[in-house]
Amino acid sequence: MIRISSILSEKISSSKTIQVQGWIKNRRVSKQVTFVTLNDGSCLQNLQIVIDHNFFSEDDIKKFCTGASLSISGYLTKSQGKKQAIELQAQKIDVLGHACPDTYFLQPKKHSLVFLREKVHLRMKTSTFGAIFRIRHALSMAIHQFFHEKKFLWIHTPIITPNDAEGAGELFQVTTLPLAKIPQTEKKEVDFDKDFFSQKCNLTVSGQLHGEVAAMAFSNIYTFGPTFRAEDSNTSRHLAEFWMVEPEMAFYDLEKNIDFAINFLQYIIQYVLKNCQEDIYFLAQREEESKTKKANSLPMLLLEKLQQAAKVSYIIITYTEAIEILSRSAPNKKKKFKFPVKWGIDLQAEHERYLVEKHFQKPVVITHFPKGIKAFYMRQNADEKTVAAMDILFPGIGEIIGGSQREERYEQLIQAMQYFDINQKKMDWYLDTRRFGTVPHSGFGLGFERLMLFITGMDNIRDVIPFPRTPGSIIC
Amino acid sequence: MIRISSILSEKISSSKTIQVQGWIKNRRVSKQVTFVTLNDGSCLQNLQIVIDHNFFSEDDIKKFCTGASLSISGYLTKSQGKKQAIELQAQKIDVLGHACPDTYFLQPKKHSLVFLREKVHLRMKTSTFGAIFRIRHALSMAIHQFFHEKKFLWIHTPIITPNDAEGAGELFQVTTLPLAKIPQTEKKEVDFDKDFFSQKCNLTVSGQLHGEVAAMAFSNIYTFGPTFRAEDSNTSRHLAEFWMVEPEMAFYDLEKNIDFAINFLQYIIQYVLKNCQEDIYFLAQREEESKTKKANSLPMLLLEKLQQAAKVSYIIITYTEAIEILSRSAPNKKKKFKFPVKWGIDLQAEHERYLVEKHFQKPVVITHFPKGIKAFYMRQNADEKTVAAMDILFPGIGEIIGGSQREERYEQLIQAMQYFDINQKKMDWYLDTRRFGTVPHSGFGLGFERLMLFITGMDNIRDVIPFPRTPGSIIC
Repeated sequence: MIRISSILSEKISSSKTIQVQGWIKNRRVSKQVTFVTLNDGSCLQNLQIVIDHNFFSEDDIKKFCTGASLSISGYLTKSQGKKQAIELQAQKIDVLGHACPDTYFLQPKKHSLVFLREKVHLRMKTSTFGAIFRIRHALSMAIHQFFHEKKFLWIHTPIITPNDAEGAGELFQVTTLPLAKIPQTEKKEVDFDKDFFSQKCNLTVSGQLHGEVAAMAFSNIYTFGPTFRAEDSNTSRHLAEFWMVEPEMAFYDLEKNIDFAINFLQYIIQYVLKNCQEDIYFLAQREEESKTKKANSLPMLLLEKLQQAAKVSYIIITYTEAIEILSRSAPNKKKKFKFPVKWGIDLQAEHERYLVEKHFQKPVVITHFPKGIKAFYMRQNADEKTVAAMDILFPGIGEIIGGSQREERYEQLIQAMQYFDINQKKMDWYLDTRRFGTVPHSGFGLGFERLMLFITGMDNIRDVIPFPRTPGSIIC
Repeated sequence: MIRISSILSEKISSSKTIQVQGWIKNRRVSKQVTFVTLNDGSCLQNLQIVIDHNFFSEDDIKKFCTGASLSISGYLTKSQGKKQAIELQAQKIDVLGHACPDTYFLQPKKHSLVFLREKVHLRMKTSTFGAIFRIRHALSMAIHQFFHEKKFLWIHTPIITPNDAEGAGELFQVTTLPLAKIPQTEKKEVDFDKDFFSQKCNLTVSGQLHGEVAAMAFSNIYTFGPTFRAEDSNTSRHLAEFWMVEPEMAFYDLEKNIDFAINFLQYIIQYVLKNCQEDIYFLAQREEESKTKKANSLPMLLLEKLQQAAKVSYIIITYTEAIEILSRSAPNKKKKFKFPVKWGIDLQAEHERYLVEKHFQKPVVITHFPKGIKAFYMRQNADEKTVAAMDILFPGIGEIIGGSQREERYEQLIQAMQYFDINQKKMDWYLDTRRFGTVPHSGFGLGFERLMLFITGMDNIRDVIPFPRTPGSIIC
């Protein structure tokens, strides 16, 4: 069995009989021949199958419907059509599985993304989602390859954890207690002693704290896996289950962290630009068509945006500088911002978009945020007002990476934990990393689906993960 | 900054000043010099640092305790000692983080694995766990590389799911309902409408069903990620959270599936044998030492076992043949088996061990199991008694892979779902894969930690995952 991507890329044109297997995307019947386009998911393009009516009965041909699965023996010839270089002259066709045209949803016409979100288990068969998930695979491989080349270890941090690394409290509880009859203590509280782990547990919101533990042994590590937020936000940017990449590097300060993060982003974007040309061009064209419809709502085209992010130097400014730019900006003076600009605020999407899309028109790194709006584990700067944090903002996306140098000083970390009201007793293991051979270290988190949005040009985060989980909705 | 693995592998011996950073494993003070062995996790070996007492004060040297972190500038020279080829003559040393000898647990002596399981957040700093988790990384990379070369897509299947793919019912519930006050319906049942996903959800026990969906679009896919079983088994072989690799291949029958699984195992074992020599030799030596203590309980040494599994052809027999061999075996005739041998039983560990370790003394594949003891999705054979399943058994481990050809025929699948009492309505999306363009397909699941046990020679599964989750126990 040969895969269609191999056939098309090798431009074979021999008379040797080969066997291909796949699903019918489309059928076109003429007088003497029927043309069937076959796809096996190995690439965007289909293989055209030529079915000579002299050798196949009308009954057979009726079965060759969109969605049906075929196994075909035949030989390749140069195509007389303009759409493809080669085609397969069918000698023998087995229908492996039928697809009734009356009930099969994915007939060859445009389907809305909204409709396809209801058919999550079938949408991968479409050209758009085929392209998206081949890119998702390539991007994942790029991430592993980048870190492996740099001798980082992939550390499998746990999904079930008693910790809330971000302190945001948006947690999914994990329990084996019978929900219909929750056991109680004498004080009428939930009796977690009776739960599977004899304590209260939830799904992880970040692998970072465990990543820091591993970095204290291996220097350079990364995590890459699912994380969870039980945030009741039904928007095009929120998933309850999403993937993060979180490297953690011993002996890195904030500056090295930023350099490394930019290198990382540029490496993986270059990788997909090189390895997913066909799929990215397809999505770029798709975006261009929808752009015309949306009356030029996008400032830059997909390919331009990708090539820029993969090559140019990024702007690096402090939070204080960002606030100054925003204060002096036209929208601020005209009171167009919904959220007033003032030192100390958390930057809102409108502010990020102004900086990235209007003011600088390229990726921007913002550093040295006020400590009150960032997490407890970030390293306090000498000014005692800011922390050694950094956010990387991308056009059309906003924050794609958030990172920091970590507070490696025991006393300062304890103070920060008190400030943020973090339970020290539960985090004693984490404090051990500062008690014994602590080192300056840094890391960041990349929102994998946000990067997928950037690379595919898609608008809704539900469309770049195979099986989305959102409030009130699990299709399968 | 240069990593110690690079310094040692390149056997540099220049007088140029270099900088290294890491943690002290050991210190030896003599009259004129102090020797410190430094490790940065990049490899098993330490770099020997020579500290001339003429240039460093007694107060400084006192701080160079086991576990402390140092940044050192110096130059490499040939070592006069026999243990290492090169050493670093220290010119400048910064103590980044102290480790008080009175409170730091990991002093340079043997620590029991049981003790280290209580110090999960520090054990990675030991030689044994350093070796184990470097191998875990390499094995993970081998898995991705194998599939990527074969053009399989890595599909990120969901962790939160309403399904129980194996039907075993050992599920962790995932909920945002307040446990202290579970909302009820009028019928006094748990009101899942009010839960985050408006339905009952749990942690996945397998990515297979979603993998099948993806294979119907991309032909060849795999998953690699955590899966969960809320099984209250406190044994050396059970984890509540463990990793699985689950490839799924359209157009593969059972025979192709078995061939592919053996290829896969041999590729990844060869990869680690080639890329983790130092760490595997260390663990092999460790095993040999403990073997002597355990009075020859292991039939084969680690390296021998690995080289065999990576090269020899595996025995392939049917379940019926396996039962015949077991029936005729000495332990059966002497009634030494705890579980009597009879066609229809699920093979127990004692049976598997006899076949693999006594009878064949190499990896064994068993096929065509009775349908009653296997999952609903396995393809029924023409005999109507067995299914196209296969288990691969390894010496010392037992089942390392379990797989099957899937039931692709709609009617037969419905019958099997009825037989196993599976809710068809909830699985309608899965049935769609059989309604529209179904194809023969196969796949398997590899227990990643079981393979880690095999490759590292460790006995307890808690020792091959960074942060184990077992009944009643989460250290961090």
